[in-house]
Amino acid sequence: MKPILVLNGPNLNLLGTREPEVYGRETLADVEALCVATAKPHGLDVVCHQSNREYEIIDWIHEARETALAIVINPGAFTHTSIAILDALNAFPGPVVEVHISNIHRRETFRHHSYVSGRADAVIAGAGVQGYAFAVERVARLTKG
Amino acid sequence: MKPILVLNGPNLNLLGTREPEVYGRETLADVEALCVATAKPHGLDVVCHQSNREYEIIDWIHEARETALAIVINPGAFTHTSIAILDALNAFPGPVVEVHISNIHRRETFRHHSYVSGRADAVIAGAGVQGYAFAVERVARLTKG
Amino acid sequence: MKPILVLNGPNLNLLGTREPEVYGRETLADVEALCVATAKPHGLDVVCHQSNREYEIIDWIHEARETALAIVINPGAFTHTSIAILDALNAFPGPVVEVHISNIHRRETFRHHSYVSGRADAVIAGAGVQGYAFAVERVARLTKG
Amino acid sequence: MKPILVLNGPNLNLLGTREPEVYGRETLADVEALCVATAKPHGLDVVCHQSNREYEIIDWIHEARETALAIVINPGAFTHTSIAILDALNAFPGPVVEVHISNIHRRETFRHHSYVSGRADAVIAGAGVQGYAFAVERVARLTKG
Amino acid sequence: MKPILVLNGPNLNLLGTREPEVYGRETLADVEALCVATAKPHGLDVVCHQSNREYEIIDWIHEARETALAIVINPGAFTHTSIAILDALNAFPGPVVEVHISNIHRRETFRHHSYVSGRADAVIAGAGVQGYAFAVERVARLTKG
Amino acid sequence: MKPILVLNGPNLNLLGTREPEVYGRETLADVEALCVATAKPHGLDVVCHQSNREYEIIDWIHEARETALAIVINPGAFTHTSIAILDALNAFPGPVVEVHISNIHRRETFRHHSYVSGRADAVIAGAGVQGYAFAVERVARLTKG
Amino acid sequence: MKPILVLNGPNLNLLGTREPEVYGRETLADVEALCVATAKPHGLDVVCHQSNREYEIIDWIHEARETALAIVINPGAFTHTSIAILDALNAFPGPVVEVHISNIHRRETFRHHSYVSGRADAVIAGAGVQGYAFAVERVARLTKG
Amino acid sequence: MKPILVLNGPNLNLLGTREPEVYGRETLADVEALCVATAKPHGLDVVCHQSNREYEIIDWIHEARETALAIVINPGAFTHTSIAILDALNAFPGPVVEVHISNIHRRETFRHHSYVSGRADAVIAGAGVQGYAFAVERVARLTKG
Amino acid sequence: MKPILVLNGPNLNLLGTREPEVYGRETLADVEALCVATAKPHGLDVVCHQSNREYEIIDWIHEARETALAIVINPGAFTHTSIAILDALNAFPGPVVEVHISNIHRRETFRHHSYVSGRADAVIAGAGVQGYAFAVERVARLTKG
Amino acid sequence: MKPILVLNGPNLNLLGTREPEVYGRETLADVEALCVATAKPHGLDVVCHQSNREYEIIDWIHEARETALAIVINPGAFTHTSIAILDALNAFPGPVVEVHISNIHRRETFRHHSYVSGRADAVIAGAGVQGYAFAVERVARLTKG
Amino acid sequence: MKPILVLNGPNLNLLGTREPEVYGRETLADVEALCVATAKPHGLDVVCHQSNREYEIIDWIHEARETALAIVINPGAFTHTSIAILDALNAFPGPVVEVHISNIHRRETFRHHSYVSGRADAVIAGAGVQGYAFAVERVARLTKG
Amino acid sequence: MKPILVLNGPNLNLLGTREPEVYGRETLADVEALCVATAKPHGLDVVCHQSNREYEIIDWIHEARETALAIVINPGAFTHTSIAILDALNAFPGPVVEVHISNIHRRETFRHHSYVSGRADAVIAGAGVQGYAFAVERVARLTKG
Repeated sequence: MKPILVLNGPNLNLLGTREPEVYGRETLADVEALCVATAKPHGLDVVCHQSNREYEIIDWIHEARETALAIVINPGAFTHTSIAILDALNAFPGPVVEVHISNIHRRETFRHHSYVSGRADAVIAGAGVQGYAFAVERVARLTKG
Repeated sequence: MKPILVLNGPNLNLLGTREPEVYGRETLADVEALCVATAKPHGLDVVCHQSNREYEIIDWIHEARETALAIVINPGAFTHTSIAILDALNAFPGPVVEVHISNIHRRETFRHHSYVSGRADAVIAGAGVQGYAFAVERVARLTKG
Repeated sequence: MKPILVLNGPNLNLLGTREPEVYGRETLADVEALCVATAKPHGLDVVCHQSNREYEIIDWIHEARETALAIVINPGAFTHTSIAILDALNAFPGPVVEVHISNIHRRETFRHHSYVSGRADAVIAGAGVQGYAFAVERVARLTKG
Repeated sequence: MKPILVLNGPNLNLLGTREPEVYGRETLADVEALCVATAKPHGLDVVCHQSNREYEIIDWIHEARETALAIVINPGAFTHTSIAILDALNAFPGPVVEVHISNIHRRETFRHHSYVSGRADAVIAGAGVQGYAFAVERVARLTKG
Repeated sequence: MKPILVLNGPNLNLLGTREPEVYGRETLADVEALCVATAKPHGLDVVCHQSNREYEIIDWIHEARETALAIVINPGAFTHTSIAILDALNAFPGPVVEVHISNIHRRETFRHHSYVSGRADAVIAGAGVQGYAFAVERVARLTKG
Repeated sequence: MKPILVLNGPNLNLLGTREPEVYGRETLADVEALCVATAKPHGLDVVCHQSNREYEIIDWIHEARETALAIVINPGAFTHTSIAILDALNAFPGPVVEVHISNIHRRETFRHHSYVSGRADAVIAGAGVQGYAFAVERVARLTKG
Repeated sequence: MKPILVLNGPNLNLLGTREPEVYGRETLADVEALCVATAKPHGLDVVCHQSNREYEIIDWIHEARETALAIVINPGAFTHTSIAILDALNAFPGPVVEVHISNIHRRETFRHHSYVSGRADAVIAGAGVQGYAFAVERVARLTKG
Repeated sequence: MKPILVLNGPNLNLLGTREPEVYGRETLADVEALCVATAKPHGLDVVCHQSNREYEIIDWIHEARETALAIVINPGAFTHTSIAILDALNAFPGPVVEVHISNIHRRETFRHHSYVSGRADAVIAGAGVQGYAFAVERVARLTKG
Repeated sequence: MKPILVLNGPNLNLLGTREPEVYGRETLADVEALCVATAKPHGLDVVCHQSNREYEIIDWIHEARETALAIVINPGAFTHTSIAILDALNAFPGPVVEVHISNIHRRETFRHHSYVSGRADAVIAGAGVQGYAFAVERVARLTKG
Repeated sequence: MKPILVLNGPNLNLLGTREPEVYGRETLADVEALCVATAKPHGLDVVCHQSNREYEIIDWIHEARETALAIVINPGAFTHTSIAILDALNAFPGPVVEVHISNIHRRETFRHHSYVSGRADAVIAGAGVQGYAFAVERVARLTKG
Repeated sequence: MKPILVLNGPNLNLLGTREPEVYGRETLADVEALCVATAKPHGLDVVCHQSNREYEIIDWIHEARETALAIVINPGAFTHTSIAILDALNAFPGPVVEVHISNIHRRETFRHHSYVSGRADAVIAGAGVQGYAFAVERVARLTKG
Repeated sequence: MKPILVLNGPNLNLLGTREPEVYGRETLADVEALCVATAKPHGLDVVCHQSNREYEIIDWIHEARETALAIVINPGAFTHTSIAILDALNAFPGPVVEVHISNIHRRETFRHHSYVSGRADAVIAGAGVQGYAFAVERVARLTKG
């Protein structure tokens, strides 16, 4: 069975060290391990990527059309600016769940709007790193039978 | 230990019968059973209420200041219009998780803004009825230790 | 055959005494009698309710899903603020006609927008109390074989 | 006694053939016959005009200052763009009722605003061709003794 | 002589316990006693009500048309959302003074606009509980001879 | 003890003669006498100034940093346009109460916004000349022990 | 020498009879006589046209490219809606003076913007019929030597 | 086979003489000849009309429902103001291509929005007179087979 | 008989030297002489003032309540920012004519709105220095018996 | 002679497979072959690039300053977000033609604005893949003698 | 050689004492000494003025047309409100550098827009008092042969 | 001691050749040499990078958290679009100074807003290449003892 693709956008490589009062102290490796662990009981694999490069994220989504079951994505700052990622997701046929570690609705106004939310099946914000687990659970449900 | 309060706002009593293509076929009773089941392994109780009355929701939140550990709330249409519910939540000291069954960001523009999101710790939208389970899980994590 | 449900919102109990230069001198009882009289030649019954309580209006709409043929509604000030009533109407399968006694387009700007108009089949404003008769006539036409 | 002037704006000559799922299958001749039939029991005459020309509508309104009791107008697309028609109506001393066959509030945003509504005594939208009958009834009431 | 009606809106029952850094430590009972004490030297009585229910506030204003000299109102969160309360106040013939304990202009943008201010004779914000005393004094002046 | 500084802005020298239906018939001298009389029972002195000159108002606020206990200010038209007065008030350490004789919320839209309200401790509008008495009372309370 | 072209737009044929409290009691014939009389001492001729038809105004402006020295135009309601008249004026090489009998800035908001003002050399509003005399005087000055 | 209808709106009769730095030096006759020449190799006829009259354009579109294969239209200034032309085009069943000689996106802001673009199949702007050839080519492709 | 007061606002002392391509080469002295000469045949005197000080303009308007027949005012940059001058003009009982040498509608957007136009009887813009003559002529007409 | 540079932005590598109901079934290779074939009769070469990387597009435009005659560009989603590409095009001295396969004016509002249109000589939208042929034809015309 | 004019606007006389956490502890005298010291090595003199009076700043700019080489200006709160100062600067032929001690882009929204920036050659914000030295350096460079 | 990092964004590699009337004739090498020379007397080193790639700029900022004292950044067009660069800068603990060679406030509206200014300590615009020297000087001051 195809794996779930978990994508993290710009600056998330700093997770655990950048503004820990906003993002917590868990690292990107912790996040990726959590996704794997959450998927396992459902018999699902997970592939994780992080990039500060918009085009890599686009390319991974393109590939995912053939190779992935679903996409869990935290687009970071690209959430608010990238129509190109939205277009790539529009070309992906499977479920998409959008995750934000912090509650973007409690931050600056320019972080309240997400281009991706118009495409995502579900949106989870402010649940910390646990939000990734919820996203994987949701994907497991959506792709079941 | 105090229970988790699960509040559902106007029209959610119709769940499972109203616009099933938007909200799914599960009923409010299903939702409430799911919350109880999710909380149990964490040793937590759940109390559930639904109302079409803004004041009942406010009153329940007031009482919760003494009697509840945390609040999981789907304010329904009041999400977009009730500052009074926001004010009541501001007076509640524990965690608050906001749930929407459908992805409000894919619907009419007037459903994109939530007064409650400015107060909530986490916001989960579009995960269907499963979103309530995620919310209870999040509350369990936040109130642990 | 099921009756037509005629709903009047907040402050309409004052009809005939409140700002008569805006709303005229006919009372709510006059309005309800007019609806009954208009429906009769079409072999239709009418049930009338007025409330200052948003939740009562919602509850009546919920019940109407089983018990009413169509809804004629003057939501009063809730026209401009209640998404909850809109949601309830969205769950009602029959025709809906919106009535305003005064021409809301000649009043304050905040009265120009109606959440209900996006759901209503027809909207009648500024025809005074006679607007209710037109609404009942319209419902009679729409529900005719 | 002076007649009621019924004016129909641009594209309404196509009634019954253009977008019948929006405007229905009745023709302009049907509409005009309906107006005549509705006025008759009130002892009122009706004169009907349709034009795709803004200036003809203005000229008819000018003449109506001397020759008509009241105006029933469906300005079509000019509803949203013609201040000149509004100005002409402002110079007409009798009652004005605005009619739209479809519910303009359920269509594109640019159809939600009407310059004429700020002058009209009543506005009827979405009642189909029957809206003309309501308008004539309203005029009959307003001009009665 | 008819009394002054003092109305407090949603969440004000929590006064003294909710966000005391915003609203101070005096309770609703203190507020009501202050109003009575302020009115006394003017030979005026005071009747006080608080409710989290919009309809109760509307109903009290309706009754006040017969039974009260003037209204002092702190609509709480309904200040910013209730056109129905505005409509009820528009039907009340006596003086209306609007009070806010905190300075609403120093808070979130959505608290800067008040539907009631367009009807009130005077508006007092940020004077703490003392603002009620000022409101009663103002009413005493306005209703004198 | 330092006195309270009462500042009146442009055109308030015309009080009692300009638009009396808006501002009443009492003169600036009456206002200033009222402030003195209100402060006296509290053992407080009052110093009053009026100017049509923005810089004089700024200069008086600067001096008040050393010489005044609190400021009561009706900035007149500068309310809506002067950031410089706001900046001066920001540099003043004591309480500030803003007064408007008329209810600015019932007038032109450009009078609804006040730069000063973002700094003031309390705002009193529409209480006529009595508003100054309330402001002095409020200052007395705030500066007490 | 080529004459000055004086153009009046829709509804101005009613001048003197329509809303005289806004537009005064002088007729279009009076206006045209005034223009002729004002131009004469400058040795200039005047040609006057009025139309409720946008295309006639456009056509007259097109012809004016060959036949007129300058244009004085009161576009009536087309002021606010006609880009086509603006385009025609942009193709006219001589001076253009815009006249409005009433002060459009004291009327409805939608009358505050003029497409023509962006092309006109001068704009005169609220000077009543005398505004035409000023416009002719201005044209005389601009086309002198 | 039915011909292609090529419609040009107001002021385009001046083509080649009006603002040649914007619109170039080719005349309307040149444009129409180009359309004929472009259509010929495809075995298609072309009928051309220009008018400064909105109603003529509407009437031609109405007739085109029976008599034309497709419409190529440069609505000139009506692009930005005429909902009536849009409505007429909505009633036309064949392909519609919108042409603008200049690049409207480099001009005044009020020229950036086109009512027609919401209906057109293709939009070509800034390609000069050659844009008409492209439009005819596009129509030939769309109507082939 | 009282004279006409002609007021010029900030930077108009530079007239003739500042941006002559915008304002022309005539000086303030020329403007004032023109006003005197225009008023003379009407048997009217003129008093002229210029100031860069908002308060002086306010003070002159205050005095004018007793001493002037009418006011001709070019508020310069204060046009767009001074509510205090508007308030002073509101307190002046006679006619007010607003003049701008350049056509403010062809300049930066922030120069398109005038607080004074809401009070002025007439507004003349873009007629150069001659606009003052028109203003004086208008005042002569308005104050004539 | 230097070639024409044809640039395609993000996601256009998926052409023919992504949302074929929007973009058609032709592939990027088809597009590029079409450009070559169109240029050939004009004696012009074509060089084609596609990238999901904003910086590659910028770099290609930089190089084009020395190596290309003109640019045909479909910036994809970067159309609406990339000022950097606009800046690069501003530094390119030759003609630029912007192409969109679909009619962006019929899609989401955020696709209606293009940063590139402010620089492009011509804009072609909704002509499908044929739009590239038109663009190459336009470039051929613009670069001809 | 003419000196550089350094102008400081309202409230800057309080420098060093007002909100030192925003503006630092250096005084206006320190600022002026710094400007003199910075100019000296370039053989340039400096003249410094501060005023809370808009008209004084305008007058100094007028005089500077004859007497100053360049202007360094920190308009304080007038930055955001004074078109009159902008107009005066527009009449000054030499270089203008705008300085703000704090970074205005990190403060309230109403401080983000500067009328002066549209005229200034350079803008320096948030560099503290050192910003004045940079401004003088920039002027020295710009006025160097 | 760690060096200062000087970052230049997209298109700045063209400096000296692109639009020299906007950006001047100095090249990027000149800019970098200027930074080095300015830092030297302060005993500070400088490392310079330029990229058209948003991710490279992000990566350099990430590295700078360990390796640089402060950042001087001219984000070019990314100024107005990149929240990702802002986020990276938010994770950098040292001083940040933003530089723009041209005065962005005198250019297109979309260049007036900078995401980076909300994070920068100082902003310098329009001082040409000299702005970099000022930025380095500022950093030297901020990082001194």
